[in-house]
Amino acid sequence: MNTERKEPTYLYTDDQVAERSAIARQFIETRRKLNTIVDAADNYLVKRFYNIDHNTYLEGVIPAKYKELMGLVVSAGLRCDDCIYYHVIQSYRLGVTRQEQEESLNVALVVGGRSRPIGCVVTAVGRVVRVRPASL
Amino acid sequence: MNTERKEPTYLYTDDQVAERSAIARQFIETRRKLNTIVDAADNYLVKRFYNIDHNTYLEGVIPAKYKELMGLVVSAGLRCDDCIYYHVIQSYRLGVTRQEQEESLNVALVVGGRSRPIGCVVTAVGRVVRVRPASL
Amino acid sequence: MNTERKEPTYLYTDDQVAERSAIARQFIETRRKLNTIVDAADNYLVKRFYNIDHNTYLEGVIPAKYKELMGLVVSAGLRCDDCIYYHVIQSYRLGVTRQEQEESLNVALVVGGRSRPIGCVVTAVGRVVRVRPASL
Amino acid sequence: MNTERKEPTYLYTDDQVAERSAIARQFIETRRKLNTIVDAADNYLVKRFYNIDHNTYLEGVIPAKYKELMGLVVSAGLRCDDCIYYHVIQSYRLGVTRQEQEESLNVALVVGGRSRPIGCVVTAVGRVVRVRPASL
Amino acid sequence: MNTERKEPTYLYTDDQVAERSAIARQFIETRRKLNTIVDAADNYLVKRFYNIDHNTYLEGVIPAKYKELMGLVVSAGLRCDDCIYYHVIQSYRLGVTRQEQEESLNVALVVGGRSRPIGCVVTAVGRVVRVRPASL
Amino acid sequence: MNTERKEPTYLYTDDQVAERSAIARQFIETRRKLNTIVDAADNYLVKRFYNIDHNTYLEGVIPAKYKELMGLVVSAGLRCDDCIYYHVIQSYRLGVTRQEQEESLNVALVVGGRSRPIGCVVTAVGRVVRVRPASL
Repeated sequence: MNTERKEPTYLYTDDQVAERSAIARQFIETRRKLNTIVDAADNYLVKRFYNIDHNTYLEGVIPAKYKELMGLVVSAGLRCDDCIYYHVIQSYRLGVTRQEQEESLNVALVVGGRSRPIGCVVTAVGRVVRVRPASL
Repeated sequence: MNTERKEPTYLYTDDQVAERSAIARQFIETRRKLNTIVDAADNYLVKRFYNIDHNTYLEGVIPAKYKELMGLVVSAGLRCDDCIYYHVIQSYRLGVTRQEQEESLNVALVVGGRSRPIGCVVTAVGRVVRVRPASL
Repeated sequence: MNTERKEPTYLYTDDQVAERSAIARQFIETRRKLNTIVDAADNYLVKRFYNIDHNTYLEGVIPAKYKELMGLVVSAGLRCDDCIYYHVIQSYRLGVTRQEQEESLNVALVVGGRSRPIGCVVTAVGRVVRVRPASL
Repeated sequence: MNTERKEPTYLYTDDQVAERSAIARQFIETRRKLNTIVDAADNYLVKRFYNIDHNTYLEGVIPAKYKELMGLVVSAGLRCDDCIYYHVIQSYRLGVTRQEQEESLNVALVVGGRSRPIGCVVTAVGRVVRVRPASL
Repeated sequence: MNTERKEPTYLYTDDQVAERSAIARQFIETRRKLNTIVDAADNYLVKRFYNIDHNTYLEGVIPAKYKELMGLVVSAGLRCDDCIYYHVIQSYRLGVTRQEQEESLNVALVVGGRSRPIGCVVTAVGRVVRVRPASL
Repeated sequence: MNTERKEPTYLYTDDQVAERSAIARQFIETRRKLNTIVDAADNYLVKRFYNIDHNTYLEGVIPAKYKELMGLVVSAGLRCDDCIYYHVIQSYRLGVTRQEQEESLNVALVVGGRSRPIGCVVTAVGRVVRVRPASL
């Protein structure tokens, strides 16, 4: 099952997203600081794990944007707020529309219930709105 | 966000899947029995919940097959074995290939870890193999 | 907050429930075997934990039957099948009606979603039906 | 199982709770903002889900206050902090005493353990104390 | 943080454990079948994940036996029955005593509660007992 | 299985940890406030639970430091941020090195996945770094 993979084409950089949303900026900045610490730790197993993680979301038989939305759904289901921010931003960078994000979050809602993802869903839907500039 | 929705086009019926896989058949039969009991209970809130659940997976801005795969990923992440069987079968009925199922399960693996979905992943991948006839 | 507590009054013994339902009987028998093993282990921390667990479900400012139903709801939310059987049986022994069990499981459904408790909900509703004799 | 349902009788409005507790006020205000965003999204499946959620907690064969406490217990078990705040406030509005809240949280503690709900339990017990004015 | 790692020294092979316990044998056989299917799938990301997994449990600054027990504790906390079997067997192969297994499971019990790991704890303690021959 | 237990020997007090790390200090102070509220509630079941919790981490057949690391691993797996802080601090007080913490967190990573513990892992590894003074 080793189909060719390639890097997805992002429509926006992290910095461009950060410019459009205070919440996204705060998340991106915090994540950079923590990643610096993790990089300094130089733990080879963590690095390998990150490598798998990176490869998982490449373009494949499934378009990268749907994989990011899958990551969003399972993150909402597992109530991982940081992961939700991450996949909301990543999917936005890939041109995913708000309608697509909402349809994905509906899956998280029926599968994961109100208790688990609903706080996340409410928050994430709010984030989506706020991440997007008024003109979009 | 009320885009038009429509029923997806299934390539196979439940019965056709059941004919191809003993495991799928067992799951489908058990599910029918339990659904009969639930139907007999005639609980209107459960029925409304099932209605939302049904509508969540219709064709929309996201193709139905990717929604079923999202359901598979979050089910694996939440370690809901029954849900995994369900979405493996549903996605198969929609023509999802084994490669697509595997790429989806990779997302579940990196997001949910070995402990949560791996038993499910191993099982589901096994199921996928066994659900499919040799010629596919 | 040390209100008086007392043992709840059970309408049925475990054995009487076991006589009415093959599923309940299987659960009760397996549980007895495992408890024998745990008792033989004679682990004082496990025993203390069981003591807290026992005291939690006594009659208090909240009637014991509602505490058993709370145990059922959180067990469904956490997808602990064994715990669901246990609390379905315990609440039945306290005279809880099927309507009360269903209303409780609705809370589990909206809070915990389809993926986590729904398999449990479907199963438990089925169990309830089967635990009860036709005349109830 | 379609017993008559009716709206519960609240002893306090959200605003009255907000006046008595800074923590409750902050939660209620944030929730209103997020709900405004969700309402604006006008997602019909989310709206249906909220409708089920609303109906789940009505007066039924189980008194509304015990359903709110069930919601509290499963929310603590699933470690949904926002849900805990919500059900602590809702049960308070229905006249639930602190003793009743504590007995409920004990169920969450033995079922969900220290890791999952204990932070929530500690927090929620603290919240309860702080939500209540000294004279209660 | 790249300390030298090396393979742990197992006191027993899988087959020797399988000879001593019907439950262990069943688990080991099922796992072999599923691993055969996964191997046949030849998914390079799953293979890399398994490689990290293997390296995680090598002898390091923490002795391998304590890492297996950590795996047991978190598996019990996450209620992954298959993972519990796996780590019970692995730790047994490394000479871990039943007392050590029980002390580890106590951590799982207080952290993860009755609902999540208790079924697992009860089961696992039973498994431990049954995996060990009477003379141990 | 009632081996002798005794209090572990801590190398540092909570206050000494608080002096070395702003993050640890904030956690320790908040925890003290909440514990004061819980103590005032004087709930005998919660007190018994805390007693079991305390006894679980004593020196036994497994050294206390490995039990704290087990607590860290399952807390990361269950994504209990407060518990992670607690066990990072406790294990630090027992002289656990950063290498030992990292090897433990690797177990959490492969078992619990990125979504659940990775935010915790990243955060906790960062905490570890920041808890330790530069000279360590």
